[in-house]
Amino acid sequence: MPAQSTESTHSTRPAQPAQRADARRNYARILAVAVDEVAAHGADASLEQIARTAGVGSATVRRHFPSRCALLEAVFQERIQGLCARAHELSGARNARTALLEWLSALTVYAADARGLATALTREGTDEQGHPSTCATRLGEAGEPLLRRAARAGAVAHGVTVPDLLTLIAGIVLATEHLPDPAAEADRLLGLAMAGISPRG
Amino acid sequence: MPAQSTESTHSTRPAQPAQRADARRNYARILAVAVDEVAAHGADASLEQIARTAGVGSATVRRHFPSRCALLEAVFQERIQGLCARAHELSGARNARTALLEWLSALTVYAADARGLATALTREGTDEQGHPSTCATRLGEAGEPLLRRAARAGAVAHGVTVPDLLTLIAGIVLATEHLPDPAAEADRLLGLAMAGISPRG
Repeated sequence: MPAQSTESTHSTRPAQPAQRADARRNYARILAVAVDEVAAHGADASLEQIARTAGVGSATVRRHFPSRCALLEAVFQERIQGLCARAHELSGARNARTALLEWLSALTVYAADARGLATALTREGTDEQGHPSTCATRLGEAGEPLLRRAARAGAVAHGVTVPDLLTLIAGIVLATEHLPDPAAEADRLLGLAMAGISPRG
Repeated sequence: MPAQSTESTHSTRPAQPAQRADARRNYARILAVAVDEVAAHGADASLEQIARTAGVGSATVRRHFPSRCALLEAVFQERIQGLCARAHELSGARNARTALLEWLSALTVYAADARGLATALTREGTDEQGHPSTCATRLGEAGEPLLRRAARAGAVAHGVTVPDLLTLIAGIVLATEHLPDPAAEADRLLGLAMAGISPRG
């Protein structure tokens, strides 16, 4: 059986220096298959199917990716790096509110396009103590300076946190994924929530 | 196998007058079990398990509830009726904005508490043509007058529709269900989205 019950286990990447060449090849092959399977089936892609298509055993998949979370983190790593880089660029933008909104919009559109990321954000978004972890942590750390700057400029409602924003975006993406144009719908709803659906006065 | 692939089929309630007493008993027994199973496992509750616990065959479950949607609609029917009645009461409230917000908050808190309703809202929220159906339709029809009145009072952002609000609430509920106090978190996020997370000016 795939390691479906270990979702709260933290990611452990294979030790790079000691890794033998065939282990590296296996890792790369499993990851390439996982990218396709997650794109096709979302966060619940079958780990057994991934093992079969990659031509390795389930135990090999588990050795490289001890939890579903670890696998999803690896699948989304490149795009998450891109979003982190975008956040860094925007941190110097003139208008703090526009910079925050632009980054959140980029995250929303990407999550709507990347099947499984929103689910991963909500599932691994919190551990038993309610602390965020892995994908959510990295995106949270990237978004934090943008939110802080916008808040200093008086452009954010009192008490809003980065996890609030990630949760809201994950929810919007999950709830729009069956609509005809998910990315456009999700981005529109995000815009409404940011500006206020029923702003006071 | 349960009728998992017929989710777009519309609900067909058993014809009341011609219904034999044992069929009525079966219906009531299946529904009572389904309420518990959906409360425990959400919208993906096993239809086979429901049949087993109710002491009937899968075919009997399918005869009464031709689709998962039909079953979920029956499970949530009473509470949805309550929400529809609440909307009707609030339609005469003095402050149109407060009335809308109060109803949306009631819906959010209830959905956070009723495992499976949010999923049901997003899944059956649209048919092939993108039109809303069943639970979403009934809640939509109940919320429409409240939204229209608030919009006439200038208290709603341009272009906001009832399906937008149901989608946003379903998303917020889905994304907060793993947090320690889902109903409170969902209601707080809804409040932020209504007032605006980053209101202009």
